[in-house]
Amino acid sequence: MAARQEPVYWLGKDTLRVSAALFAENRRRLCQGLRAKKGLLPKSVVLLQGGEQKQRYCTDTDLLFRQESFFHWAFGVTEADCYAAIDVDTGKSVLFVPKLPESYGTWMGEIYPREHFQQKYAVDEVQYTCDIPDAVANMSAAVLLTLRGQNTDSGSICREASFEGISRFQVNNTLLHPVIVECRLIKTDMELEVLRYTNRISSEAHKELMKHVKPGQKEYEMESLFQHYCYTRGGMRHTSYTCICGTGNNSSVLHYGHAGAANDKTIMDGDMCLFDMGGEYYCYSSDITCSFPANGKFTPDQKAIYEAVLKSSRDVLAALKPGVKWTEMHRLADRVHLEELVKIGILSGSVEDMLKVHMGSVFMPHGLGHLLGIDVHDVGGYPEGVERIDEPGLKSLRMGRLVRERMVLTVEPGIYFINHLLDQALANPAQNGFINNQVLARFRGFGGVRIEDDIAVTANGVELLTCVPRTVEEIEAFMADTSKSFSPVVVSDKF
Amino acid sequence: MAARQEPVYWLGKDTLRVSAALFAENRRRLCQGLRAKKGLLPKSVVLLQGGEQKQRYCTDTDLLFRQESFFHWAFGVTEADCYAAIDVDTGKSVLFVPKLPESYGTWMGEIYPREHFQQKYAVDEVQYTCDIPDAVANMSAAVLLTLRGQNTDSGSICREASFEGISRFQVNNTLLHPVIVECRLIKTDMELEVLRYTNRISSEAHKELMKHVKPGQKEYEMESLFQHYCYTRGGMRHTSYTCICGTGNNSSVLHYGHAGAANDKTIMDGDMCLFDMGGEYYCYSSDITCSFPANGKFTPDQKAIYEAVLKSSRDVLAALKPGVKWTEMHRLADRVHLEELVKIGILSGSVEDMLKVHMGSVFMPHGLGHLLGIDVHDVGGYPEGVERIDEPGLKSLRMGRLVRERMVLTVEPGIYFINHLLDQALANPAQNGFINNQVLARFRGFGGVRIEDDIAVTANGVELLTCVPRTVEEIEAFMADTSKSFSPVVVSDKF
Repeated sequence: MAARQEPVYWLGKDTLRVSAALFAENRRRLCQGLRAKKGLLPKSVVLLQGGEQKQRYCTDTDLLFRQESFFHWAFGVTEADCYAAIDVDTGKSVLFVPKLPESYGTWMGEIYPREHFQQKYAVDEVQYTCDIPDAVANMSAAVLLTLRGQNTDSGSICREASFEGISRFQVNNTLLHPVIVECRLIKTDMELEVLRYTNRISSEAHKELMKHVKPGQKEYEMESLFQHYCYTRGGMRHTSYTCICGTGNNSSVLHYGHAGAANDKTIMDGDMCLFDMGGEYYCYSSDITCSFPANGKFTPDQKAIYEAVLKSSRDVLAALKPGVKWTEMHRLADRVHLEELVKIGILSGSVEDMLKVHMGSVFMPHGLGHLLGIDVHDVGGYPEGVERIDEPGLKSLRMGRLVRERMVLTVEPGIYFINHLLDQALANPAQNGFINNQVLARFRGFGGVRIEDDIAVTANGVELLTCVPRTVEEIEAFMADTSKSFSPVVVSDKF
Repeated sequence: MAARQEPVYWLGKDTLRVSAALFAENRRRLCQGLRAKKGLLPKSVVLLQGGEQKQRYCTDTDLLFRQESFFHWAFGVTEADCYAAIDVDTGKSVLFVPKLPESYGTWMGEIYPREHFQQKYAVDEVQYTCDIPDAVANMSAAVLLTLRGQNTDSGSICREASFEGISRFQVNNTLLHPVIVECRLIKTDMELEVLRYTNRISSEAHKELMKHVKPGQKEYEMESLFQHYCYTRGGMRHTSYTCICGTGNNSSVLHYGHAGAANDKTIMDGDMCLFDMGGEYYCYSSDITCSFPANGKFTPDQKAIYEAVLKSSRDVLAALKPGVKWTEMHRLADRVHLEELVKIGILSGSVEDMLKVHMGSVFMPHGLGHLLGIDVHDVGGYPEGVERIDEPGLKSLRMGRLVRERMVLTVEPGIYFINHLLDQALANPAQNGFINNQVLARFRGFGGVRIEDDIAVTANGVELLTCVPRTVEEIEAFMADTSKSFSPVVVSDKF
């Protein structure tokens, strides 16, 4: 007997095939988690609402739809305006799709029957959203579990599912969120495969930039090329976040690249580049930063700062394994940075004493890294009972818990020369004694260095998902080697 | 004495310099329009609210900000979360920018003083948004004119400006909208220059695709290349709308390319391509469609349909001038299509009789074209007193008024073979007698042809803004000429 062919999401050519089984497994784990929960009533039914198609302000210009992350995690549905239900006792899944008007067939494309979606997403049943009340009643739902909870990075509350007629049902909106968040925290083999893929394509795209960058270009040309590579070669229509293409002093702006600081500087000879970009495939993220000199050759100062960050990166990667405290990894990076800054001569004195006054956060004001998954800042960093540490730097850490197997995390130490933070430190009697201002002055305007890898935690350590040149020697050799590009954008033979 | 240097928006290299004077002129015209309006009180102050920075669902992932269109038209401000006021009597302009927290300097970039924005946007005054109530009071505003009105394409009501403390002021939310819409309808010389630029870059990008397309590629590779060209060569970070890259039968789906039909088909030998894409520069749109065979050589049927559409396009362009009814231009296109479909043999009988039963809309269910500006479907198509014609096809026309000098419009006739519309026509006794079903059967699955140009209406006719190969001969010669690309994406010499 032939094995049942699971439907797959696939964008052709060398893009990844993702089986619908990934989402069936996620739903199975969710039901398992819910059933283990005290207070769960029999005949509970999870009810999720997918993302809605939105327009630009009051116009009729559709914004490109991207599925809501919880909904994607559970169903992998690419269409807007859906709902879905899962019977927690039986695991039965029901997808609700909008009943489309005939005009949809003219303007938007073929109107598929419900069977199409049943097969495409390997769910047990498909109904129309207009029939939700009856369909849910037919599931004999004693209680609907809706999703309500706070995103610990944004502070926003996720939008709870709602439909006309929901008042007929008993609703519990507190049980589901912590359970689904814990499920999303731990990645399955199938999810890891997708994250390996997003990392591979994004790594290749970063290498493409290292081959192409040269002084005189605009930063946004690098953003454009990154996006083009990820999309045309990897089927990545979205990036995981707005591309950060900082060069020169802009590389010290942690989230450079937004509309108010739009990657619009000209890249200059002598600039450090800090390119923090990641492609997204089928809603799974990547988040990679490469730092290198625009002209391909590190100056002694650039090399010194770069290698200081590389050392903290490698020390953290070596120390990471299940059971370690993520906050301690952050502290480890801080310690290495301070030790190295002493060697460089920017700081002097006892590193222990520096740590007591949080000198690390002067140079790395952000957290060491964050969970990664369907969201670039993935959920689960601070479950109930885990509190943020209210110290400079650590308070920006997006995860406060112990490292666990199958977590996927970014490791992204950085050293930045941010004028207003340096000035604050110089004005702070507890900190200014450690700073050799004359040496520091040389680094004003340097920008910053960030080295960001994505890793999956294994039983004993980590699997490095990112693959880009990392040492100074590797980077210089890679950028100098004009004879080949590891992964060129295919250019038509008509060129 | 040196002329005062107006600040410009410019993304470097060969991108367009757009003077802040463009927006000053828009504000001047707005005040003039308002002052001509009955019911305007002295000391009226226009108050606009700009677009807000939004996040993906409940996460902290920022969506790439794009300014709200009315706000952009009046101030050209690229930053989010601003407000602005204009004293109608004096024309004095005040921009309100958010007072940013110190952490912004670390995460998002330099915090500029108010003078920076005053200079950047050439406004009379800059205040913080938290100071709006006092600043507006200082303008001695007798009444605030806020923007409230319906977008006639989406049916949505634009969001009216609001701030804490607005209840202190008298507000009129009906005066402003029709006046600003009429201002946006008529393009100034400076606006036309931007629209010429967006058309030039997007035209070049389309030509790039014609050089690169070949069977075996995915449709989304064409989207990716288009976007890359527009951004890297033209500084266009946004497209004006989601790219439509339909090939084969997908070219009959008018708004193909959205997340539910995501440009994910493989391009096949023999397919017609219908690529409808436009880049956006500094919020000004373009909207161009090119139709051509994927393999570069029209079949006789493809040529016949293409030339039918080209004839209607050229007949409309020849007839267009101030004073003509846009609805009549739509009817003209329908007539030409029907005449040509008779010649091809798909239809037979009297074209006059066909027009009476709306046969044109079977093959062109959309409107002939629409206003273009800061929105791709620009405002002003149906001012009060102008009603939509409730006939198939014409009811989809986004503008119902007389053509006027300085309007910018798309002219985009098309012939499509949309199965469910053809089946409806065959089932309609009033229509089926005109259809030669045997001939029609040959065109099932053909897809469609659309030829879309952007034009500016001049005193006596039109200025064609779009510049792409249009005749069958031009297209075939252009696609066959492998020796050069008119406008290659610059590829590093390292390749």
